[in-house]
Amino acid sequence: MRQKKYLLPESEIPQAWFNIQAVMPNKPLPILNPATREPLKAEDLYPIFCEECANQELNTTDEWIPIPEAVREQYTYYRSTPLVRAYELEAALGTPAHIYFKNESVSPAGSHKLNSALAQAYYAKKQGITNITTETGAGQWGGALSYAAKKFGLECAVYMVKISYNQKPYRRSIMQTFGAAITPSPSMSTRAGKDIITLNPNDNGSLGCAISEAIELAVTTPGCRYTLGSVLNHVCLHQTVIGLEAEKQMALAGEYPDIVIACFGGGSNFSGIAFPFMRHNISGEKKTRFIAAEPAACPKLTKGKFEYDFGDEAGLTPLLPMFTLGHGFKPANIHAGGLRYHGAGVILSQLMKDGYMEAVDIQQNESFKAGVLFARTEGIIPAPESCHAIAATVREALRCKETGEAKTILFNLSGHGFVDMSAYDQYLEGNLQDYSVSDEDIARFIADADALNP
Amino acid sequence: MRQKKYLLPESEIPQAWFNIQAVMPNKPLPILNPATREPLKAEDLYPIFCEECANQELNTTDEWIPIPEAVREQYTYYRSTPLVRAYELEAALGTPAHIYFKNESVSPAGSHKLNSALAQAYYAKKQGITNITTETGAGQWGGALSYAAKKFGLECAVYMVKISYNQKPYRRSIMQTFGAAITPSPSMSTRAGKDIITLNPNDNGSLGCAISEAIELAVTTPGCRYTLGSVLNHVCLHQTVIGLEAEKQMALAGEYPDIVIACFGGGSNFSGIAFPFMRHNISGEKKTRFIAAEPAACPKLTKGKFEYDFGDEAGLTPLLPMFTLGHGFKPANIHAGGLRYHGAGVILSQLMKDGYMEAVDIQQNESFKAGVLFARTEGIIPAPESCHAIAATVREALRCKETGEAKTILFNLSGHGFVDMSAYDQYLEGNLQDYSVSDEDIARFIADADALNP
Repeated sequence: MRQKKYLLPESEIPQAWFNIQAVMPNKPLPILNPATREPLKAEDLYPIFCEECANQELNTTDEWIPIPEAVREQYTYYRSTPLVRAYELEAALGTPAHIYFKNESVSPAGSHKLNSALAQAYYAKKQGITNITTETGAGQWGGALSYAAKKFGLECAVYMVKISYNQKPYRRSIMQTFGAAITPSPSMSTRAGKDIITLNPNDNGSLGCAISEAIELAVTTPGCRYTLGSVLNHVCLHQTVIGLEAEKQMALAGEYPDIVIACFGGGSNFSGIAFPFMRHNISGEKKTRFIAAEPAACPKLTKGKFEYDFGDEAGLTPLLPMFTLGHGFKPANIHAGGLRYHGAGVILSQLMKDGYMEAVDIQQNESFKAGVLFARTEGIIPAPESCHAIAATVREALRCKETGEAKTILFNLSGHGFVDMSAYDQYLEGNLQDYSVSDEDIARFIADADALNP
Repeated sequence: MRQKKYLLPESEIPQAWFNIQAVMPNKPLPILNPATREPLKAEDLYPIFCEECANQELNTTDEWIPIPEAVREQYTYYRSTPLVRAYELEAALGTPAHIYFKNESVSPAGSHKLNSALAQAYYAKKQGITNITTETGAGQWGGALSYAAKKFGLECAVYMVKISYNQKPYRRSIMQTFGAAITPSPSMSTRAGKDIITLNPNDNGSLGCAISEAIELAVTTPGCRYTLGSVLNHVCLHQTVIGLEAEKQMALAGEYPDIVIACFGGGSNFSGIAFPFMRHNISGEKKTRFIAAEPAACPKLTKGKFEYDFGDEAGLTPLLPMFTLGHGFKPANIHAGGLRYHGAGVILSQLMKDGYMEAVDIQQNESFKAGVLFARTEGIIPAPESCHAIAATVREALRCKETGEAKTILFNLSGHGFVDMSAYDQYLEGNLQDYSVSDEDIARFIADADALNP
C-alpha cells in the first residue's frame, strides 16, 4: 500500500530554528526610529517586546538558534505535524505533479501560529513578565497566544479586529476557552482606538489598528509586553520548525520540492515552510521556486512598493523596510482575515526584492473553489487563508498537466477551517464576492508611505 | 525528554476488525421481527442495509473480520490516531494516575465516526448501491458519512435532528462542503416526519425520529440503502480499529490500562476503544474496568431497563434487546447531541448485563468543566460528547489522588469541539443548565417498551 503520511518521532523534532538572516546575501535594511531615523538597537525594542525576542529580531549572525527545552516539550503536544501526499487531489486534477502538504492545522489552536506563540510566551515568562497582549485578525494568532499564555501561566489580553469578532464568534470563544480576555478593536480602551472610532464610529477594524491598540496597552502597563503573530523576524524564525521538519519528511518520501507554496499575510507561515528549503537555493545547491499566494484584495507583494513604512495603522511602530500598500490601506472584508495586512515582513521583502521568491494574487472565489476540492479529496476543510495556497498549488499542478512535467510541489496547510464554515456557506450558495484593488487606491495609500521615505 | 505521543506506522494499522460477538460468553439475544417475533436473518435486513453490513451484524462466529484494502487505504489519511499521555492534565489534578487518551478528533470529519462511515460507504459502492442515507444528531456522523460517500462516489442524503440543524449550522455546512444534501428532521418529506409534525409543529426532533425518516427514504428509494452511525453490531465492529491501535500504542508506552473510559450515546466509540481490551477480560487474562460515561439527561445504562424495544421513535426498526429508556423518551436539549439516544447497542447491553462494563451519569456542567480543564492543559477543545468521558476520567483520577494509587486510565477523545463553541460560551458565561430525569418520566416511557415484551 502506498504511503500517505510521513511523521517524525519526537526525538527528531528540530532542536534549533533556522535564522535565514545569517545567510542572506543582502541583509535586511535596518529598522528605523521614525523620529531620528536612526537604526534601532535591540535595547530600543525592550519596552515593547521581551528581550530574547528583541535580540532574535536583530540577530544577523547566528544561523541556528536553539529551541528552549520547555518549548520543544510543548511542541511534542502536536509536532511533528504530518507531511501528507495528496494522492486524491492529484487524481482529481489529473496532474502528473506530486503534491505534498505540511499539515499545520493539527495544532491545538488549529494553525501554525502556535509555533511562535509558545516561544514568545516562554521567553516572556522567563523574563518575569506577567501579562502579554496582542492583536488578532482571523483569530488564529489570538487563539494560539491564548493557549500558549495559559501553558506558561501568563495573563493574556487580545485585541480582535472588529469584523472578525463579529463574523467569527467561535474564534473568540476558543480564546476565551483557553482563558484569555478579548476586546474588539477599535475599542475605547486606548487612545489609538478612540482616534479611529472618533473618525468613523462604524469602523470594522484592521490588523493595523489592533496592533496599535495592543502596543499601546503593552507600553503603558507595567509587567506587560507585546507579541506579534507574523511579519517580524523572530516570528518567522520560530516558524522555521515547519520547513525543517518538512525537509526531513520529504527525504523520507525520497523527494525534494521543485516548488514550495504558502499563503501570505505578513509572511509567517510562508517563512516557516520556505526558509529551510531556501537556504539550499542561497547556497546554490538547489533551484526550488517559492511562491507566496496573497489575496487579490490585499496584494502587497504583487502590487505594493518596497520602502519604509509603519507596521501599524496609527504609526506607533518603528519604520520597517518592506513591500507595502501603505499603512493606511484598508483591505476589503474578505474571509481570509489573516491575510488582510498591508505589508510584508522585513526579511521576506528583502528576499522578494532579491528574486528568491515570487508572488501570485488569488481571488476569493478561486481560493474557496480550491478549498472545497481539497476538502472533498483530502478530507480536511482548510482555513480561508490556506485556501489561497491550495489555489496556487492547483494552478501549478494544472500547468504540469499541460506540460506533462511531474514536478514535486509542497504547500503549507497553515490551518483548518472548522471555525470558518459561514464562509464556505457563502461560497457554496454562490454569494461570495471577489475584490480587486484599483491602481488609484494603491497609489493613494502608498503616497502616505512615500512621505516617510525622504 | 518524556514521550508525549505514540503513533504507529501505516503498515501497523490493523488489518482486521475485532468481532467481540465471537467470544462473548453469552451471545446477544436475537433481533426480532416486531410482527412475527421471529429472529431476523441477515437477508431480512438486506432491503435496509447493504448486504455485507447485514451479514456482519449477525456474525457471531468470526473473531476477526478483514478490513478491505480500499478502506485501509482511506484509514491511512488520518490513522493511526495519536495515543497521548495527558501529563499536564495529570499535573493539574495532582493525581498519581497515568492518564492516556486516544485522539480520534484528528479524523477529517473531526470524530471517530469516520471509521465506520468509510466501511459502510465502501460496502455500498461494492454492491452497486448509488445513494446512501442516514440521520445525524450532533452532526458528527453526518459529516463523516458525507465525506465517506464523496470518497466512494455515492450520493448522500442526511436527516439532521432539527435542534442540531439550528444550533449547529456549522455542522450542516461541513456536510454540504463534503457534498451531501441535508434535511432538518422532522421533515414533511416522509410519512414518519409528517406524523410527528402533525402532532407538534414545533418538535425539535430526535435521533429516533431522524432514523425513522432515513429508513423510510431508504426502503422507498431504488438503489438506496440506510446507514447508521452507532448502536448496531457492525458499526461497533468497525470502531474496534481504535482499541486495536490503542493496544499496540499502550504497549509502546509500556503500559496496560486499569480503566478504559468513553462517552456513551449508542455505544460506537465506547465499543471501539473498549472491545479490544475487553477480550482479555473475557479470556480471564486481565481485569480492566470499562466505564461508559452517559449524560444525566439520557441515562439509559444507569436508569434504563433491559428489554426489547424499537431503535427508532416511529417503530420502523426491528425489535432490539437493549438497555432502553423507551423509544418515545425525549431527552433534554443538551449540547452533547450525539448522546441523546434512548437505547444502548445490543452487544453493549448484553455485556452490561453480564457485568463486563459499568456506567456513570454526568451532568452537563460537570462535563464542560472537565472539557475546559482539558483544553487548557492538553490544548484540544473536546466535543461536548467527549467532555463526558473526560469528566469520568477526572473522577477516577481524583479517586487515585485520594487513595494514592497510580492507576493507568485510558479514555477515548471521540471528537473535537471546534464546531460547538456556542456551548462553551454558555458554560463560560454560567448559563448552562443541568438536567435530571425523574423516575416517573422514565417509568412512563419504559411502559411503552414493556408492552413490546409479552
